Amino acid sequence: MDNFTYCTPTRYLFGKDTENQAGKMTAEMGCKNIMLVYGHGSVVRSGLLDRVKKSLDQANITYTELSGIDPNPTDDRVYEGIEIVRQKNIDGFLAVGGGSVIDTAKAIALGVPYDGDFWDFYSGKANANTATALPVGVVLTIPAAGSEGSGNSVITRKEGLHKISLRTDFTLRPKFAILNPELTFTLPQSQTVAGIADMMAHIMERYFTPTTDVEVTDRISEGILKAIIEEAPKVIARPDDYQARANIMWAGTMAHNGICGCGRVEDWVSHAMEHEISAVYGVTHGAGLAVVFPAWLTFMANHASAKPAQFARRVFGVNNHDDKSAALEGITALRGFFLSLGLPVTFGMLGIETPDIDLLVKKLHENKGEIIGGYYRLTQADTYEIYKMMLNGDI
Amino acid sequence: MDNFTYCTPTRYLFGKDTENQAGKMTAEMGCKNIMLVYGHGSVVRSGLLDRVKKSLDQANITYTELSGIDPNPTDDRVYEGIEIVRQKNIDGFLAVGGGSVIDTAKAIALGVPYDGDFWDFYSGKANANTATALPVGVVLTIPAAGSEGSGNSVITRKEGLHKISLRTDFTLRPKFAILNPELTFTLPQSQTVAGIADMMAHIMERYFTPTTDVEVTDRISEGILKAIIEEAPKVIARPDDYQARANIMWAGTMAHNGICGCGRVEDWVSHAMEHEISAVYGVTHGAGLAVVFPAWLTFMANHASAKPAQFARRVFGVNNHDDKSAALEGITALRGFFLSLGLPVTFGMLGIETPDIDLLVKKLHENKGEIIGGYYRLTQADTYEIYKMMLNGDI
Repeated sequence: MDNFTYCTPTRYLFGKDTENQAGKMTAEMGCKNIMLVYGHGSVVRSGLLDRVKKSLDQANITYTELSGIDPNPTDDRVYEGIEIVRQKNIDGFLAVGGGSVIDTAKAIALGVPYDGDFWDFYSGKANANTATALPVGVVLTIPAAGSEGSGNSVITRKEGLHKISLRTDFTLRPKFAILNPELTFTLPQSQTVAGIADMMAHIMERYFTPTTDVEVTDRISEGILKAIIEEAPKVIARPDDYQARANIMWAGTMAHNGICGCGRVEDWVSHAMEHEISAVYGVTHGAGLAVVFPAWLTFMANHASAKPAQFARRVFGVNNHDDKSAALEGITALRGFFLSLGLPVTFGMLGIETPDIDLLVKKLHENKGEIIGGYYRLTQADTYEIYKMMLNGDI
Repeated sequence: MDNFTYCTPTRYLFGKDTENQAGKMTAEMGCKNIMLVYGHGSVVRSGLLDRVKKSLDQANITYTELSGIDPNPTDDRVYEGIEIVRQKNIDGFLAVGGGSVIDTAKAIALGVPYDGDFWDFYSGKANANTATALPVGVVLTIPAAGSEGSGNSVITRKEGLHKISLRTDFTLRPKFAILNPELTFTLPQSQTVAGIADMMAHIMERYFTPTTDVEVTDRISEGILKAIIEEAPKVIARPDDYQARANIMWAGTMAHNGICGCGRVEDWVSHAMEHEISAVYGVTHGAGLAVVFPAWLTFMANHASAKPAQFARRVFGVNNHDDKSAALEGITALRGFFLSLGLPVTFGMLGIETPDIDLLVKKLHENKGEIIGGYYRLTQADTYEIYKMMLNGDI
């Protein structure tokens, strides 16, 4: 186990009707005049936005709206938000939505007190860990990105389609996150399952590590994965199954608030590979991950099979003493699980008939470096091979 | 799953040499003149106290010492501490030790700003959740009580030997906890194994719940238990096995910081039953729990076997389709595990040849109420039966 620091100060408020406490929680984080950030129609249509506004009114909190945030959110909305916040003396944020909305709010919150271009933090020119940010609260509607409990923010720079994940220890952790599983009943199945793939990937990116002797963190990770695999089919069978939705929602937060990474090097190559796919082809992040992860694991079965074998045995109950064979059985089980939820496992199923793999590899290594990966160090030839494997899910 | 709020703001600093950052962390929690609380010889003998003092000096933090805190800490030391803190304008605490030292520091921290008797919080006369407390930091030397990450404090009132556990959501959570597994190398085996029983009990008190559909929290709990069962024998075989000590230490914190209780009613009868035993007979809390828990579980195998059966199957790999039989096999496995570590499983092994069960039952229900328990409601006749089972570990 490696030395580590860990702190998750986000206050989680979980359960039915909790969105009605949004105003009270916003006041408790010390805000009076906030920016209310959200996306498109469903938040409005469902009546959620009205309930949140009523709650803000009751707590005497004024707000300015920044709406229409798209999936794979872009820097232009961040610049727009920073300008408005500065003009109106806004003192905090309430993000109502999923990862894109939360990540946009976080980026604005970080950019406002900074003298330079907010993108400096994403490009690595400035250090967000030592920076300050305005406080952010969340009402979560899509369990997937885990941004409600993480210190991270993913923004795409429109120019050049650079999708960059910024990671901070504390600076960008929300002050509170309101998690009402009922708000997820009406999520389309495609979004539900993409979210499930995303949260599983958040755990697996941390699980596949070169660090040994991390039994506690391993067992916690395996446990959450098993819970997701148990609960996911129930959510598909009955979208308004409160208990299953509740477990999936809490799993999504636990998957990404850092508990699964304590004491070890993490990987994150699969996310980086997927970020290039969604930056270029605009696919849903979670669906892209369902394609990337089995391919990445197949490469690992051939090159570093011990941990994929443990994953297969402990998470999918594979009973095979040979590491490589066990790993491959685990990958078959994982791919079968994704397919059973209606997730894609190949470029073709993702709607990308002739992917430009050369471009993906070029951009990947431009953004992330010549050799990448925490679990296993990958060259351009390696990532090319992994992208190629996604052409045919059966390898 | 029940509605819940959850927040763990404690900053964990985990790993080798981390105690040298005690001064820096104390300064970061906003303190300049603290009370340094610790126990007996080993903290001094090992040189740890000198390193901590040096670190405080380097951070220009002055301190007053309160030393010699005993296991099962008592209210007299708390009153003494409150008086000194008020006289010397002390602004925070650094507790160097295990649960007794930390809980004493927390009790003083809570008592100082309070106008009345600090015991009001423990007796239920005053609400600690809405009270304020001075900040507390921790350098942990005994992984067991989990107080380094919890909002709890257990103090015994000398008059009448009332041992009471005060539980707060946030008020008493430490601002930081320094966890260096190397500090636990020299723990006597008896303390190591008592700590292991204690942390397992902290998980099981939360695991045995009437709340259904808590799959994520269940799987996390089972995972940490499995990690403890895997790592504990290594620590006994080689006390300076850093990796095993590290896993046990982190498990102890995770066992009690609330993550294993999210979304459900908890039980806590076994702790309450043990508190009476250690209040009357002065035994080590963890050793007492190793005696109580299998007896409590045996009663449950007869009255509410579903969850004990799940525990047996998932934690100990019991393969038996009948719930009661599976539960009993799990209890045998748990008792065998405790015995393999050298823990007691009967009153006699605990050194109590003729326990006054009538007294224990009387005090238990005086302190906790006529009917007690979250998982299953127990009358005085029931708790009498459970105490009786501890006479003979084989039931």
